[in-house]
Amino acid sequence: MVVVTEARATEKQIENIIKVLHEHGFDVHRSTGVQHTVLGAIGVQPEFDHRQIELLPGVAEVVRITEPYKLASHAFKRNGSVFDVGGVKIGGDQVVIMAGPCAVENDTQIYTIAEKVSKAGARVLRGGAFKPRTSPYSFQGLGEEGLKLLRSAADSFQLKVITEVMDKSLISLVEKYTDILQVGARNMQNFTFLKELGKSSKPVMLKRGMAATIEEWLMSAEYILSGGNEQVILCERGIRTFETATRNTMDIGAIPVIKKKSHLPIIADPSHAIGIRDKVIPMARAAVAAGADGIIVEVHHDPDHAKSDGAQSLFPDQFTQLMREVRIIAEAIGRSLA
Amino acid sequence: MVVVTEARATEKQIENIIKVLHEHGFDVHRSTGVQHTVLGAIGVQPEFDHRQIELLPGVAEVVRITEPYKLASHAFKRNGSVFDVGGVKIGGDQVVIMAGPCAVENDTQIYTIAEKVSKAGARVLRGGAFKPRTSPYSFQGLGEEGLKLLRSAADSFQLKVITEVMDKSLISLVEKYTDILQVGARNMQNFTFLKELGKSSKPVMLKRGMAATIEEWLMSAEYILSGGNEQVILCERGIRTFETATRNTMDIGAIPVIKKKSHLPIIADPSHAIGIRDKVIPMARAAVAAGADGIIVEVHHDPDHAKSDGAQSLFPDQFTQLMREVRIIAEAIGRSLA
Amino acid sequence: MVVVTEARATEKQIENIIKVLHEHGFDVHRSTGVQHTVLGAIGVQPEFDHRQIELLPGVAEVVRITEPYKLASHAFKRNGSVFDVGGVKIGGDQVVIMAGPCAVENDTQIYTIAEKVSKAGARVLRGGAFKPRTSPYSFQGLGEEGLKLLRSAADSFQLKVITEVMDKSLISLVEKYTDILQVGARNMQNFTFLKELGKSSKPVMLKRGMAATIEEWLMSAEYILSGGNEQVILCERGIRTFETATRNTMDIGAIPVIKKKSHLPIIADPSHAIGIRDKVIPMARAAVAAGADGIIVEVHHDPDHAKSDGAQSLFPDQFTQLMREVRIIAEAIGRSLA
Amino acid sequence: MVVVTEARATEKQIENIIKVLHEHGFDVHRSTGVQHTVLGAIGVQPEFDHRQIELLPGVAEVVRITEPYKLASHAFKRNGSVFDVGGVKIGGDQVVIMAGPCAVENDTQIYTIAEKVSKAGARVLRGGAFKPRTSPYSFQGLGEEGLKLLRSAADSFQLKVITEVMDKSLISLVEKYTDILQVGARNMQNFTFLKELGKSSKPVMLKRGMAATIEEWLMSAEYILSGGNEQVILCERGIRTFETATRNTMDIGAIPVIKKKSHLPIIADPSHAIGIRDKVIPMARAAVAAGADGIIVEVHHDPDHAKSDGAQSLFPDQFTQLMREVRIIAEAIGRSLA
Repeated sequence: MVVVTEARATEKQIENIIKVLHEHGFDVHRSTGVQHTVLGAIGVQPEFDHRQIELLPGVAEVVRITEPYKLASHAFKRNGSVFDVGGVKIGGDQVVIMAGPCAVENDTQIYTIAEKVSKAGARVLRGGAFKPRTSPYSFQGLGEEGLKLLRSAADSFQLKVITEVMDKSLISLVEKYTDILQVGARNMQNFTFLKELGKSSKPVMLKRGMAATIEEWLMSAEYILSGGNEQVILCERGIRTFETATRNTMDIGAIPVIKKKSHLPIIADPSHAIGIRDKVIPMARAAVAAGADGIIVEVHHDPDHAKSDGAQSLFPDQFTQLMREVRIIAEAIGRSLA
Repeated sequence: MVVVTEARATEKQIENIIKVLHEHGFDVHRSTGVQHTVLGAIGVQPEFDHRQIELLPGVAEVVRITEPYKLASHAFKRNGSVFDVGGVKIGGDQVVIMAGPCAVENDTQIYTIAEKVSKAGARVLRGGAFKPRTSPYSFQGLGEEGLKLLRSAADSFQLKVITEVMDKSLISLVEKYTDILQVGARNMQNFTFLKELGKSSKPVMLKRGMAATIEEWLMSAEYILSGGNEQVILCERGIRTFETATRNTMDIGAIPVIKKKSHLPIIADPSHAIGIRDKVIPMARAAVAAGADGIIVEVHHDPDHAKSDGAQSLFPDQFTQLMREVRIIAEAIGRSLA
Repeated sequence: MVVVTEARATEKQIENIIKVLHEHGFDVHRSTGVQHTVLGAIGVQPEFDHRQIELLPGVAEVVRITEPYKLASHAFKRNGSVFDVGGVKIGGDQVVIMAGPCAVENDTQIYTIAEKVSKAGARVLRGGAFKPRTSPYSFQGLGEEGLKLLRSAADSFQLKVITEVMDKSLISLVEKYTDILQVGARNMQNFTFLKELGKSSKPVMLKRGMAATIEEWLMSAEYILSGGNEQVILCERGIRTFETATRNTMDIGAIPVIKKKSHLPIIADPSHAIGIRDKVIPMARAAVAAGADGIIVEVHHDPDHAKSDGAQSLFPDQFTQLMREVRIIAEAIGRSLA
Repeated sequence: MVVVTEARATEKQIENIIKVLHEHGFDVHRSTGVQHTVLGAIGVQPEFDHRQIELLPGVAEVVRITEPYKLASHAFKRNGSVFDVGGVKIGGDQVVIMAGPCAVENDTQIYTIAEKVSKAGARVLRGGAFKPRTSPYSFQGLGEEGLKLLRSAADSFQLKVITEVMDKSLISLVEKYTDILQVGARNMQNFTFLKELGKSSKPVMLKRGMAATIEEWLMSAEYILSGGNEQVILCERGIRTFETATRNTMDIGAIPVIKKKSHLPIIADPSHAIGIRDKVIPMARAAVAAGADGIIVEVHHDPDHAKSDGAQSLFPDQFTQLMREVRIIAEAIGRSLA
């Protein structure tokens, strides 16, 4: 922590600030400048609330200098993490493609889509069985029956499974059927839940909250990592801004930022970020061009009759075309599709 | 839903749009203008995703026209709701003051603060027993022991109790000790949890999510109301914006907006919105001046040694002064303190 | 500037950082901690771009510690500034009320409104003669004829005049008729223009840009102050956020923040912030309760036929009622209406 | 405009709404639903303020349905516009690369950089001669001398010139030396200025304001187009959001949105959007992958000693590598570098 004093701070005030810092266990280094005195407070006090210093007389500004996350930081692990999900590598030089419908609706639907995305080159099948819906009056998913269909369709076409787990009480059920546990944006700061996920042996894909800073996102990853689960995958899915022309604003810039700050892989979800089919393809390409370790895309063979999110689902032919383009883009930057 | 066609839409495209709307069960009224044709699609289809129409050829824009919430709307209940919490009225002409520490720390602390806020005119005692913390390394609360202390301190000074319930699994425990269940901003869209709260017989104070629009907030209230619990109190606690000089931007404008759109009472939480003691007081006054039905404020007798949020807690003397000011402000606009 | 090194920074890297800082003329104080080394770089280098240090190998974070504004800061002038505008005091213990139509339309209109707001207690008459409009197809104001009407109506009812100047080329014209020059939100960072305003002898009311941080706003004030014009009044008029239920989000929290950081008076403009008549009144009261030095409000005797912004203009009776309420609120916090 | 009545609106209220719409010159089509009545108000009234209807008793919502811009819309011109700037095509199938320093500093600097970016494949040289700076104490550019150097360096290496014009009074001077006039983000809604640019014969590159919606941006383009200048190029350069890890949040999603709504070419400026060198490259690639018609990038042969924005300038070698990558990406999506 660095404390900057006001230009008109008295010596007595400065001494009091130092005294309070000492009481809290910090070592203090003092630099006296022409206008301001700067106090470097050295020491690790994870619970310390720096606003307590901000309120002392004579203080102009307090700056927290150490990132509050450790296990998620690049400093902790110099090379990018690579997780092996039943033979599919997440992270490293490869770009992994996850695809499938928003929700599992019935066996014909999920088998049809699984076959098509597998042929086009996807390695992981997505699909929701429990749907969190803004309205209490909307379709809420097939539940365990949906999980069974998803697993079976994935197995038939050599795909791995990713699906959302919405609540602590559902973890053990969902774990039975999935290869990767997906945590939705609205649960990104559900800390009770994150702690439980820290005990799971399955990789967790943690979506960024709509209003979460990159630092808060990494702090949430830290909750899972500190519980003992080392396999955390981040997923950028758009943030909320003043622009309403798209559902969210996809923060493509978060991809290179995460690459610098953390060793964890990062996936992009253009379907939820942009929210409408005709713009999913350019955003998926952009994410790969920016260095994402993969993309997760909604695909439906009959989006007009999808029970949810049909409007943001690609037709299978569009998905095949997208795969062709992202393959070239990945290679242009020294990577290859998983 | 209103569908506006593109200026260059063909008659064939327009007919197709009408056909699709009919298939989805809408009645369609067509208005042909010079530049655009406007289609009014009449009918209640709560699950309908309007983006399906947005993607049809010839469509320029689709506008959803009915608010998706019903029970929370002013149309549903013409007069403002008033809830009686053991003799304390929430809503109506009175302005209720809730105060107390961020977290319950021990019996001396909570009794001392309870006595002081009660004397100054507060009617409800706040205090957390389970603390959701951004960092897995911070103080997490006293648990059930904290709830017991809170209840007992409140009873000793004729106060009601409000405390946060963080998770579905804790509802029955927290209900035993509290008068009002508080739902934190991060749980505002935890729909599984909201459904359970709909079954509770206790009033629920629902904090606005940091990135939630007013409409989404009312939709979350709808989840609780539609479960059968009619006692929902809204709480504005700041939204996330680009401004970093304050912890959040307190959306005082949400107060008159809610008053127009809904019959539910609205409380303001300046402590969490602004995040630093010296600005809590002006914001609390502003909320009452804007028409809030109450305020919830953090107060601590020894904030320098508070285990959490000391920097945003008022000293008891400041709270007493604040009470004097808000009493006059309430009266200036035809209300009185509860 | 404070430079924090990476946990894994080598001694060689740290020495290089120090060398670069020295080259740029900084004194460097080094504090070596367990995890990080902290370098305090002391010296005033207004043109220095701290990102140059951020890019050096071994650097984790660079924190700029001195506020970039000087003349606008509280440190520069310990007491709040008070400007005397022809006998009307802006700043200090008084709360000044400015009111009038969005645009001057004709003599009957401006005389009618001037009389009504003067009787109710306003001290300054507002009204636009040159209107910046988002659409090139909208009403653009009466020009100099409007300025003449405004001046004459104000004089007839013992009011001072405030009106917007939109462009550098119009300053000398507008100065002839007005007492206070208003700078619109969209011009807040038009630096060429601000420099010219620094040469004016008239007070300038500088509206906050819709996306401007408080620090940027004070930097823009600094442009005017550094040109020699000491009479800068700030005006909060709402910022752009994700919430669309109101036109802008009025940042009431900016009022106490400015009061702490600067000696300049701050006025609030609820009409433009909230954008619709029925919510202007609660927001005006809130601004006064939060400590604003005044409010500027749109009033029209016939808003249904106003040429612009009728929907956010108060009826004269509403304005009179508002005056009654803010008078009590001002007194509740130890102030009085000017 | 579509007017939706409240569920409890009376027949008398509805008739009054229709009467007011008629008075304002609208044709009204009425659709009576079970819960709401919907009124389609047909007619072009560019100056009409829809909030006047919003305030009428019985009105639940008013929706403006026609986009307020015309000349900028896709409906106005079915194919994308292509501008020929001295042989360099902007728009169409080609992707144009603009590069150069933030500011022109001296002849050696601008000649060195011009040569390097020309060799690597850039077609347009950028460089500022008049710099808008947030601080009144920073380097403000070389003025006309800078323009001369820029023109001469560009001519020597077969490059076209783009440079910012900051103020109405400078248009005729800057036009003498440049091929494209650049309008900065802060001037995007300086309407007096935009009108003047409408009279210029040079193409104008209009940067998006930091808080401007896509619709407002197109409205600003409309100001220029309606003045008679048909050559408007849009430039996405990041918007302001709550995320502070990058200088701005680059709204890559704006690229496909503009492509759908408008016929105007769109360029991306990753240097200003992301603000730090090591992240400019991935963002530049992302913009091309998303379909941008070009990129404008800051390049400096000695960024450590650049007078401004060195930290976001690429080294020439990095720029050459970027060119190689974007060439492949452009081809992957059926385009080629200009």
